[in-house]
Amino acid sequence: MSKVADQKLSRSGEKNFLWAKAHMGALTNLAEKYAKSKPLEGIKIGVCLHITKETSVLIDALLGAGADLKVAGANPLSTQDDIAAYLSTRTEVWAWRGQSAKEYNWCIEQVIGSHPEQIIDDGADLHVAAHLSKARGIVGGSEETTTGVGRLKAMEAEGRLAYPVIAVNDAKTKFMFDNRYGTGQSTLDGIMRATALLLAGVRAVVVGYGWVGKGVAMRARGMGARVTVVEIDPIRALEAHLDGFDVSDIDTAAKDGELFVTTTGQKNVVPYSAVEKMKEGAILSNAGHFDVEIDVKTMLSKAKGVKEVRPNVDEVILPSGKKVYLVGKGRIANLVAAEGHPPEVMQMSFANQMMAAIRIHADHAKMEKRVYGVPAELEDEVARAALKSMGIAIGTQTKEQKEYAKSWEI
Amino acid sequence: MSKVADQKLSRSGEKNFLWAKAHMGALTNLAEKYAKSKPLEGIKIGVCLHITKETSVLIDALLGAGADLKVAGANPLSTQDDIAAYLSTRTEVWAWRGQSAKEYNWCIEQVIGSHPEQIIDDGADLHVAAHLSKARGIVGGSEETTTGVGRLKAMEAEGRLAYPVIAVNDAKTKFMFDNRYGTGQSTLDGIMRATALLLAGVRAVVVGYGWVGKGVAMRARGMGARVTVVEIDPIRALEAHLDGFDVSDIDTAAKDGELFVTTTGQKNVVPYSAVEKMKEGAILSNAGHFDVEIDVKTMLSKAKGVKEVRPNVDEVILPSGKKVYLVGKGRIANLVAAEGHPPEVMQMSFANQMMAAIRIHADHAKMEKRVYGVPAELEDEVARAALKSMGIAIGTQTKEQKEYAKSWEI
Amino acid sequence: MSKVADQKLSRSGEKNFLWAKAHMGALTNLAEKYAKSKPLEGIKIGVCLHITKETSVLIDALLGAGADLKVAGANPLSTQDDIAAYLSTRTEVWAWRGQSAKEYNWCIEQVIGSHPEQIIDDGADLHVAAHLSKARGIVGGSEETTTGVGRLKAMEAEGRLAYPVIAVNDAKTKFMFDNRYGTGQSTLDGIMRATALLLAGVRAVVVGYGWVGKGVAMRARGMGARVTVVEIDPIRALEAHLDGFDVSDIDTAAKDGELFVTTTGQKNVVPYSAVEKMKEGAILSNAGHFDVEIDVKTMLSKAKGVKEVRPNVDEVILPSGKKVYLVGKGRIANLVAAEGHPPEVMQMSFANQMMAAIRIHADHAKMEKRVYGVPAELEDEVARAALKSMGIAIGTQTKEQKEYAKSWEI
Amino acid sequence: MSKVADQKLSRSGEKNFLWAKAHMGALTNLAEKYAKSKPLEGIKIGVCLHITKETSVLIDALLGAGADLKVAGANPLSTQDDIAAYLSTRTEVWAWRGQSAKEYNWCIEQVIGSHPEQIIDDGADLHVAAHLSKARGIVGGSEETTTGVGRLKAMEAEGRLAYPVIAVNDAKTKFMFDNRYGTGQSTLDGIMRATALLLAGVRAVVVGYGWVGKGVAMRARGMGARVTVVEIDPIRALEAHLDGFDVSDIDTAAKDGELFVTTTGQKNVVPYSAVEKMKEGAILSNAGHFDVEIDVKTMLSKAKGVKEVRPNVDEVILPSGKKVYLVGKGRIANLVAAEGHPPEVMQMSFANQMMAAIRIHADHAKMEKRVYGVPAELEDEVARAALKSMGIAIGTQTKEQKEYAKSWEI
Repeated sequence: MSKVADQKLSRSGEKNFLWAKAHMGALTNLAEKYAKSKPLEGIKIGVCLHITKETSVLIDALLGAGADLKVAGANPLSTQDDIAAYLSTRTEVWAWRGQSAKEYNWCIEQVIGSHPEQIIDDGADLHVAAHLSKARGIVGGSEETTTGVGRLKAMEAEGRLAYPVIAVNDAKTKFMFDNRYGTGQSTLDGIMRATALLLAGVRAVVVGYGWVGKGVAMRARGMGARVTVVEIDPIRALEAHLDGFDVSDIDTAAKDGELFVTTTGQKNVVPYSAVEKMKEGAILSNAGHFDVEIDVKTMLSKAKGVKEVRPNVDEVILPSGKKVYLVGKGRIANLVAAEGHPPEVMQMSFANQMMAAIRIHADHAKMEKRVYGVPAELEDEVARAALKSMGIAIGTQTKEQKEYAKSWEI
Repeated sequence: MSKVADQKLSRSGEKNFLWAKAHMGALTNLAEKYAKSKPLEGIKIGVCLHITKETSVLIDALLGAGADLKVAGANPLSTQDDIAAYLSTRTEVWAWRGQSAKEYNWCIEQVIGSHPEQIIDDGADLHVAAHLSKARGIVGGSEETTTGVGRLKAMEAEGRLAYPVIAVNDAKTKFMFDNRYGTGQSTLDGIMRATALLLAGVRAVVVGYGWVGKGVAMRARGMGARVTVVEIDPIRALEAHLDGFDVSDIDTAAKDGELFVTTTGQKNVVPYSAVEKMKEGAILSNAGHFDVEIDVKTMLSKAKGVKEVRPNVDEVILPSGKKVYLVGKGRIANLVAAEGHPPEVMQMSFANQMMAAIRIHADHAKMEKRVYGVPAELEDEVARAALKSMGIAIGTQTKEQKEYAKSWEI
Repeated sequence: MSKVADQKLSRSGEKNFLWAKAHMGALTNLAEKYAKSKPLEGIKIGVCLHITKETSVLIDALLGAGADLKVAGANPLSTQDDIAAYLSTRTEVWAWRGQSAKEYNWCIEQVIGSHPEQIIDDGADLHVAAHLSKARGIVGGSEETTTGVGRLKAMEAEGRLAYPVIAVNDAKTKFMFDNRYGTGQSTLDGIMRATALLLAGVRAVVVGYGWVGKGVAMRARGMGARVTVVEIDPIRALEAHLDGFDVSDIDTAAKDGELFVTTTGQKNVVPYSAVEKMKEGAILSNAGHFDVEIDVKTMLSKAKGVKEVRPNVDEVILPSGKKVYLVGKGRIANLVAAEGHPPEVMQMSFANQMMAAIRIHADHAKMEKRVYGVPAELEDEVARAALKSMGIAIGTQTKEQKEYAKSWEI
Repeated sequence: MSKVADQKLSRSGEKNFLWAKAHMGALTNLAEKYAKSKPLEGIKIGVCLHITKETSVLIDALLGAGADLKVAGANPLSTQDDIAAYLSTRTEVWAWRGQSAKEYNWCIEQVIGSHPEQIIDDGADLHVAAHLSKARGIVGGSEETTTGVGRLKAMEAEGRLAYPVIAVNDAKTKFMFDNRYGTGQSTLDGIMRATALLLAGVRAVVVGYGWVGKGVAMRARGMGARVTVVEIDPIRALEAHLDGFDVSDIDTAAKDGELFVTTTGQKNVVPYSAVEKMKEGAILSNAGHFDVEIDVKTMLSKAKGVKEVRPNVDEVILPSGKKVYLVGKGRIANLVAAEGHPPEVMQMSFANQMMAAIRIHADHAKMEKRVYGVPAELEDEVARAALKSMGIAIGTQTKEQKEYAKSWEI
């Protein structure tokens, strides 16, 4: 009953699953442990994640721990069809690349319709759908992204959150690594694949200087770009300035930019008025979860012409006759135009996900209907496992140092 | 009744005060405002800070706001004698460079003996001295450093904190800037002045990857050094690794290092056993508050010979005959061998200090005997003032975006 | 009579041609000029270049200038099949991706058999083939790469060069840009596409610190890798050291490396004895022209097993049971696993090529049978055209400054 | 008969000499060798170099090789008085910091008046003075700087060069290292000491992108500055652009810059018209040999006021009322405000100098009256000695590889 693009891609998907698995030691170590104890035996979990080779390693680990999974993709353009095909040989999957909005929602409805007890989500579309359909029988869940956690906190603030959620995104071992180093590399990778642009010397405008923005700005500079950061938070703006980036508002940056990357989780941070100010040939891309950061809707409605000039690159002719180029329809570029985050960084995010699912199952009765962080001791465990997988040995605090940390007298 | 090295240096001190003042717009704007309203009129404040040109601008601002100050230096080797001389023309000061431990304590006793109502401290020596002498009449205070906040929290944990303290260090506009960019630059500056070492190609070992360590590692790399980070916290170790630094324990790093910089606030993070493993010619320096990070005491007690080979550089001949070099006796290198943090970064730290003093005066009756953070709205104000002083304009959130941030339905 | 993979890819090839053309202003400006004067009217030119979208812009320019072209690809794995299909609608082309050695040579023979008057080559296979078949009727040619120029100079040294050749590679506007910034970016791009490896924190070993090695090392660091440079030239080794890279011999580097990139133009710079020392999971790739830099032949002959685990990645099981991974069969990774150099940098290389062809035609009678550089005034013209295409304005020397440059008295 | 500032500084000078010597292994190894063979026994050499601790190690080496030296400083503001005092205990020296132009020339006249056979010069003032006084008895010499070599080549072009000169500057082991990494670090060091400026976030304008400019730009970026490069050479401008710097003409850069550093060897590259466009508070400094790069003369003649606000910083009030700040009177900032190049980099430059002096003595009879480069085999020797002093081992070419380099057939 799975629905994927092409079942024949399964063999290629398995290869990619194995490749990712070999680079995710911190997660596979956990998986081996729980494959014995089966802490999720028989638990029905609804999953809405980007269907990538790294996600397949998490799915494998959850299945190994005994879970009964129903899986949808987290974005109409991000599914890796070979992975979806492979996963469909092991569990029920509804996901393919190039969905319409209607198809995307249909997949989510399949997951909801399977009556899961837990939800693992990326962006909170599944959580929201669950709430809109009353969320009966769901005892808790987790959420992977800044965007999704934001939505869930808004629900909590309105008193409408129906079950406890663990904000995996808010784990240091997630946001400091996946959001920064993962998105930093994979977004640049996606842009290079889509555009073949020489990054050296390019004026890149990074909108937002949160963890994702920091990662993108750092790697864009690393490839030789001249980077302008657009921020409205004064502390982040200062940080960007002292990190050696140019800092300005979007209207100023629009005139000078050659490559734009949005990283905010906010709407219309590149408004159409800014697009009108851009240079001929400007390239627009988004690294955020939803396709709302660039005002694509207005831009396309005003355009004199739109055509695909390369895979994942649309040429948009503005009323002025100027041409600008949109990567991946304004959807999350690292997943649409490349493969998403590398496995080495996803091993941490997904180790947190794995442990969150186990904790929800074990503790949900004691938990309130609110958004929880990841406990510090789990963080520590994930970080140590990741270090081990990378072959790094660190020291420990001496007894004398522990005492010194508590002392204050001279 | 002030005691300084040489009153004749006052004119040079005034020049340096004026130079710093011209580069600290965020603080001087505040100063102008409070010079009118005089919110600290007649308030006696005991001050223990590094006596630098930047500190003189804070002193000037506090005096302008009406405060009655008694000032000691925060380190036996960090006082800029010309600044001390200049300040002594305006208030009471006990500070000179090159104090014995006894002299240093005598200065602190002078401040305590003046019966201050508030304490502004750097490292918490004055707070501790106040507590050891019963702290009568003190209604509150503030603290500038990670080290000092650590001691005050230890006091709070033991239930022995006698008054509320605002942890200025814990302001984002302090630790993210001063600790990182300030110490990063000034520590390298101090090391270059002391040693004239070519940093390009050097193997630099940075012990600690907190904000100070991040700053030192970043700037050491920026000057061409090959950097190894020593960390015992697994998350910070991972971060250092993904920032592209080598990560190891101190014993491994000791063998390869040519320049060592400690940044931890901890004791013996370079133990004598590590010193014994070092290469001929290794240079040891400290960027932390106290001279305990390198085990200087043991090293000197074992040494076959010690002599000054350059100002602020001592050659230490180990029992093995190997020579290593100690910068500034293991005391805080940026203040001992250079001028401390640049004014542009201290303007933020000291704007926080200024507002903390006013808040303590206004609110101490309502405050508990604990360590307080800096309120978010103050942070925002300081950051905006700093941006303004640097000529940077940023945008604001639209109404539509504010609503989007609160929305969660599809 | 062209032979390409699939004529139906022509439309996609045209799109890519147009995309590249729009990013190669310095070349297209030249092309427009010569489309009027037709300086190569009727001249038969044999071309052996990587068949990429950038090359299609050069082919277009040469056709526009009146030339009669016969085109082969420069590597069995580098042809972009859609571009080959498109070019075959405009001229005669023998090129497809995935050739056997025999097929590759057959294509070159087709070009030789067309009796060209000039040769434009990349790697000198066509020049060598021409010489081996007596090179009758050829009046001169040009060469694009370090490797090819090396071979031609060896021929010159033996007195066997049969016609004048312009070493386009030796133009500053070629090797300082294409070799460095072009290969730097595109090699990393190729490695990311092939392996999906997180570069942050990886120990990358770059073998060679010529222009290509400098570019690869710089960009690998920019993506967060920890880079070791292997060099045998002492001056380059020093330069790498002072640029902040670790420097060692291949045997030492082999033990620590996780990703290897060869950039030397030399044979067996990663000998099999080094492969045996590598860690489990090490990735081997080559950025040089020929597949001789890693000793692939010995490695494969000793291997217990070889299989493709991802497109362009072969897993090689060594006799010890250890697995290592070979990118693109050890062939030039940026062309095999990505699209080769970005158009912005190829515009300079190919502007030099274009002018070299015109100069050979005009001046061959006056030229000796040797390898010529590109004249300084051409360099200057290409550089100014490239600056213009990037929107950069620079100043000029004043009369006073010109005189000062010639003066020497006090 | 020496003339120095204060003979009592000799002991401090000796300490600094010993410190430098310990960091210049490549030079001291040579020195030991020639201290036995004494190839310069009794040869009278006139020396005009910056009197720094590194120079004292060269002087020591030349004396050890038997030379009879007469020494002047190469700049009115660059002499380290303690070093001059120490050297005057070993040979004849005329040098002190803070000379008038007249005093500076007087010192040079003393050297000329001693009738040297050879000249070792930095900037060519001594060579020019020798030529203006007929240069009788001089058999050859060497020159350390880009500026000096430029002057000597101008003399050669006019047919007025009276003896052979070895352009030590043109050794790769000199200009690629000393000019780039040495000036890069020491100029930033000088600027930090003079101004205490926070470099993070500053807009630094580097005028010139030769080796010195490259070094200054690279290190300014490494300290967090945002760097604009001003160049008039199109190839260098392109290189700066692709290295990720902003590139513009001086008029455009003047408006935005906060810190200016000239590195060209040319006159008035910061003309007064550019100074007028600068922001309040702009800081002007020079890293080139002569104080002609910023048009200081015009600026001071127009100024409404000039006063020293810090050691080595003059405040200049322009007619508009705007204040700008001049470092070290526009003289070479790394030597005026810091200690010049670190010893590790000067060991290479001075090893070349040492060998040049020996070669001139041995071969002058066979040499023409022109400017010679440093032979490749000397380069290689110096580079290997420097690598050894830094503890770096590199590999060698195999026999098979040597043959491959000469091969060209398939």
